[in-house]
Parts: sequence; structure tokens; C-alpha cells
Amino acid sequence: MKLVIGNKNYSSWSLRPWLLLREAGIAFEEIPVRLFVPGFDAEIRQYSPAGKVPVLIDGDVRVWDSLAISEYVAERFPEKQLWPADVAARAHARAVCAEMHAGFQHVRNQLPMNVTAMLPGMGWNTSVQRDVDRIATIWSELRAQHADKGPFLFGTFTVTDAFYAPVVARFATYGIHLPEEAKTYADFILSLPSMQEWVAGAREERDFLTDDEPYRTGPDRADAIVL
Amino acid sequence: MKLVIGNKNYSSWSLRPWLLLREAGIAFEEIPVRLFVPGFDAEIRQYSPAGKVPVLIDGDVRVWDSLAISEYVAERFPEKQLWPADVAARAHARAVCAEMHAGFQHVRNQLPMNVTAMLPGMGWNTSVQRDVDRIATIWSELRAQHADKGPFLFGTFTVTDAFYAPVVARFATYGIHLPEEAKTYADFILSLPSMQEWVAGAREERDFLTDDEPYRTGPDRADAIVL
Ligand SMILES: N[C@@H](CCC(=O)N[C@@H](CS)C(=O)NCC(=O)O)C(=O)O
Ligand SMILES: N[C@@H](CCC(=O)N[C@@H](CS)C(=O)NCC(=O)O)C(=O)O
Repeated sequence: MKLVIGNKNYSSWSLRPWLLLREAGIAFEEIPVRLFVPGFDAEIRQYSPAGKVPVLIDGDVRVWDSLAISEYVAERFPEKQLWPADVAARAHARAVCAEMHAGFQHVRNQLPMNVTAMLPGMGWNTSVQRDVDRIATIWSELRAQHADKGPFLFGTFTVTDAFYAPVVARFATYGIHLPEEAKTYADFILSLPSMQEWVAGAREERDFLTDDEPYRTGPDRADAIVL
Repeated sequence: MKLVIGNKNYSSWSLRPWLLLREAGIAFEEIPVRLFVPGFDAEIRQYSPAGKVPVLIDGDVRVWDSLAISEYVAERFPEKQLWPADVAARAHARAVCAEMHAGFQHVRNQLPMNVTAMLPGMGWNTSVQRDVDRIATIWSELRAQHADKGPFLFGTFTVTDAFYAPVVARFATYGIHLPEEAKTYADFILSLPSMQEWVAGAREERDFLTDDEPYRTGPDRADAIVL
């Protein structure tokens, strides 16, 4: 199995299936693609007609889009229980993943993922805060319901944790203040060895993508207005 | 089973599960909610913590988000084969649904669903056209592959057709020019009795939602600048 991913520093959609495979303990080969460098479009179109990362390659099967990849992996490895076993919990898990997939435009636009940067306060506005509030509520409610089964959103690790991991990273970069329950969950995700491995990979990258950098003119942290 | 939906004229996300249930021949009770009238938020929050339509209610289970609802219905009624049976085809179907769910922002923003209006030419720009091109390619390629099995994207009806039905409606409203293969598919979807029933429902509504009407000041068709 091979996973085509974009820059670890910026590609929030790539982080989802990468973390899913790592946390599930499924071996895979990583095919890194540098986003938006000359030739990027031709390179990614070798793998996917949608022209975007991530893409999963499993023999003859090529799956693009982080959610479709997650469903594929969950079906292919049922023993990993990547969705909750209970029907109602599974529906709930898919609902919050789909909500993430299609929504939270303010967090998405105002707080682009940038795992190695520290930009506290940047991008915040009241619309962002409404998205943050909803996300914090999702985390707190799930944690309250499933705490007895483990530290993940549904107790044990599921696709849901992979889907919210990029948001955890965004909140850390932009210094978003979270209620205690939500903060405990976010800190736990940041402390995962898989997450640390992703961040370490991001630190080795040298690209600076201006479209993902509304608050800096260069990779030096001191470029950030607030610092 | 009950389905909470928004205005048939405007609610593209509601059309998806509604058409899914209709085409699958699954009986359900419709709970219509008028979008954005005073009290809308309180009303929808009785059904869903995400505060959005559609919501499926099945006994104790409440599922929100059109994609999560579709997965739930497909699991609950396996005999309806709402995803393709073949593993690779199923992955492909989920990929194009997820691509639709998270993407095509230009079509989404510039051509809001408005099934009873005729606004040819409105909203078009080259970014919209890139989305249109990708959608037309998805339709044409799937039709070419599965034509022997029936007139839907994967031959027989699947979730994928439900997911692209709102786009079919948008293209009709805004007079989007399509290549022949894609147009044949779009016309077929528009001719479905279920689709006609939805449009008839929209005609009975009297709401005019300014946020969904960038090209008119009132419900009279003559308000459109081009007409
Ligand atoms: N819905 C897709 C979105 C993927 C996406 O937008 N990827 C971005 C990078 S994070 C990309 O490849 N963009 C390239 C482009 O738009 O040309 C998914 O979940 O995988
Ligand atoms: N991703 C959701 C989106 C649902 C959605 O945005 N629904 C709109 C109407 S079409 C809504 O209820 N908006 C109410 C609001 O935002 O307050 C889905 O697929 O169901």
C-alpha cells in the first residue's frame, strides 16, 4: 500500500489518512509530493484524476480524497475497528467526520494548517470562534461519553481522531484557547508519537507556500506580525 | 424513518438524502423546516447539534450530514445496493462523493441551488468552468464505463447519483453548457419522477432567501438582470 501526500507542514488533508494508517499499525510506503512546485500538477495527475493529495494506491485500486480513503481502509482492515462497532456510535462518528469534511470554512480559511509555525492570535474572528466552539463541543461531548474506553474521541482510536488531528494542529499554531476538556484531548493528540513523527517531517521541509501563509512573508518565525 | 429537510428550492444538501430514499423506495416521513425564518435555529437544534438540515431520524438514532446519512442508509438497507458491489467501483463512488462533499467551491458559491429559477449566464467565471469541466469528466467517464448496466453513473442507482443531483439542478438553472455525454446524464436525472416531485414541491414554496439569491432582488423571474 502506498500513500501519496503533500507537504507535511501544510497539507491538512494528507495528515488524516497518514495518521489513520500509522495509528492503525498498517504498513505503507509514503510518496511525498511537493505542493505547487513547477510540475506538481502533472505529477499528482499521474496518481489521481482529481489532481489533489492524498491518494491511496493499493494494487490496482487508486482512491483519492481523505474521507473515501478512510472508508476504504476501514473496510479493508475490519479487524482494526476504525469505525465504532455500535450502529449509533458509528453513525455519530461518520456525522462528525462528514461535518468536518464539508464545513468549518472559517477555521479552514483563517487558520491554514502550518504545523511548524507559532502564530498566536493571527486570523481569529468571531466566525472562527463559532467554528471553534462547535468543534470543542464535539470533542467534549464525545470524551464525556466514551472516557471509560480510552483517551480517543470514541475511547479507542477511530477515523474521527484522524479527521480532527489537523484541527488540533491548527489550534496549537494559532494559540486558540480551548475549554479544559477539549484542551486535554488536543494535548493528548499532539503528544502521540505518530503526530510527533509528522511534525518532525514537517521541520525537515524547506518550502514556503504563500497561499497558505496569510500571516508571514517568509519562513522565519520573526516574520509573524505578533512576534 | 423521518427526514428533516430545508426548503426544496434552495437546500442542495437536503435533496441528496431525500432523492436517495425516494429512488431506493424506502418509505419515510418528511419534516420540512423553513430555512432562516425566525425560530429556524431553535427548531433545527431540536433535531441536530450541528444546527443544519438534513437530519435523519431512525428510532433513537439521529444522523446529520448528507454523507453520513447516506452511509447509514446504505448500511441499514444492504439489499438496496446503494454503493457499487465491486470493491474498486465502491472506492471510486466514495471518492467522487467525498470530492463533491468537500469541493467544487466555485460552483457552490457562484451557482447556488435554486431549482425554480432560470438564470442562464449568471455567476459564470473561469473558476466555475474548471469545476464544471471536472464534474462533466466524472460523469462522462463513469457513464462510458457503466453504460451497459443502466443509465445511472454506476449503471444502477447509487449514492453517487443522489450526490450529484443538486449539481444537475444548478447547471439547469444557470444554463451551463455541457458536453453531450454529460448533458445526456443531466437530462436523465432531471426527468426522474423523484426529481420532478422535488421541483413541484419547490414551486409550492413562497420563501425568498436573499443569501441564496445573488442575482435577483425578488422571486419574480424578471428580476434577473439577464432576463
Ligand atoms: N477533499 C480532498 C481535498 C484534498 C485537497 O484539497 N488537497 C490539496 C492539498 S492539502 C491539494 O492537493 N491541492 C492541489 C490543487 O488544488 O491543485 C481530500 O479530502 O482529500
Ligand atoms: N455538510 C452538511 C451541510 C448542511 C448544510 O449546510 N445545510 C444548510 C442548508 S442547505 C443549513 O442547514 N444551514 C443552516 C445554518 O447554517 O444555520 C450536509 O451535508 O448535510
